[in-house]
Amino acid sequence: MVATHRHEISTKGQGDAHDVTKIVASTIAEADIKSGIVTVFVVGSTASLTTIEFESGALHDLNAVFESLAPRNREYRHHLRWGDDNGSSHVRAALVGPSVTIPFKDGELLLGQWQQIALLEFDTRPRHREIVIQIIGE
Amino acid sequence: MVATHRHEISTKGQGDAHDVTKIVASTIAEADIKSGIVTVFVVGSTASLTTIEFESGALHDLNAVFESLAPRNREYRHHLRWGDDNGSSHVRAALVGPSVTIPFKDGELLLGQWQQIALLEFDTRPRHREIVIQIIGE
Amino acid sequence: MVATHRHEISTKGQGDAHDVTKIVASTIAEADIKSGIVTVFVVGSTASLTTIEFESGALHDLNAVFESLAPRNREYRHHLRWGDDNGSSHVRAALVGPSVTIPFKDGELLLGQWQQIALLEFDTRPRHREIVIQIIGE
Repeated sequence: MVATHRHEISTKGQGDAHDVTKIVASTIAEADIKSGIVTVFVVGSTASLTTIEFESGALHDLNAVFESLAPRNREYRHHLRWGDDNGSSHVRAALVGPSVTIPFKDGELLLGQWQQIALLEFDTRPRHREIVIQIIGE
Repeated sequence: MVATHRHEISTKGQGDAHDVTKIVASTIAEADIKSGIVTVFVVGSTASLTTIEFESGALHDLNAVFESLAPRNREYRHHLRWGDDNGSSHVRAALVGPSVTIPFKDGELLLGQWQQIALLEFDTRPRHREIVIQIIGE
Repeated sequence: MVATHRHEISTKGQGDAHDVTKIVASTIAEADIKSGIVTVFVVGSTASLTTIEFESGALHDLNAVFESLAPRNREYRHHLRWGDDNGSSHVRAALVGPSVTIPFKDGELLLGQWQQIALLEFDTRPRHREIVIQIIGE
């Protein structure tokens, strides 16, 4: 069985993060699929999904490493193409990837106590993000 | 329902990238599975799959960050073992990962307009790559 | 069909890695599911799963890159919150991600000959890790 849900999230631009764990958990609860996997996927190439302990310190630390790895204000070839300023966003998103896949059983996500599902916004401007929550199981 | 397809791609070595979106989309169209997820997986430990806006600027930028993170010409312990020169390839591939999982519905991949599925070659020599397109759904 | 298995692994702390390929392969063999995907997921936010050629040189190289990217002894905001010392662990785990998804067919994982499934421990102390092996297929 498959259940597809879409959810919109407004973000504030690069460095913003959203905890989507409750949305994913409630989508599973409503889907009447007891065990399987859920893939949470962000539509677009300048944001990512992962898991993290969702507290401001760890999120700050993660963004600091992204800034050292692919600084926002460096020159990027991508800027030459479109007059964009989000080359750093594309690089960061390609590295982390667009989706995370998490098992669930008896209707419960098998996450750790301090492990949340996070949407990471990398784009340099606020965005209306669409995430797809695709549930497969029985 | 499950459908498994294999596809071969010849690459030019480190820094080469291939847009496999059309191959994945046509495989889904032929599979007679309407909704579900597709896992695109590369066989081997020196290449990766992710999504990116597939244009030469963004690909150049991504490769530049990989080069700063795990430079091709640094000494690697892996070289001592086999006489290989692809330590940078193994590190990059382990970081990005071997697969990407993408939801589809009504036969259509739920990608963004500027979001393509990319095979990233990290090995230091040309390779014949096998990718597996595993479709699960109903 | 869905099969869920849990497995415990004792780790030695940051830099430790465990080859879980045989555990995953034998779980598939016992599950009576012939073709599909397996998601291997680590419960917790300071460890990751990926694939790599599992030999000590490549593992050393990977850890060296993690150390340059998110050094263990740097100050992290996460430390201020809990008095923890594992900010580097959270950053590394969020970058690599908590799971890897691999296709299998006719009961066999479609891995390359030199491609193993690795649990990467990033935490600064030994941990008892739980991994979830979620098999979906037919």
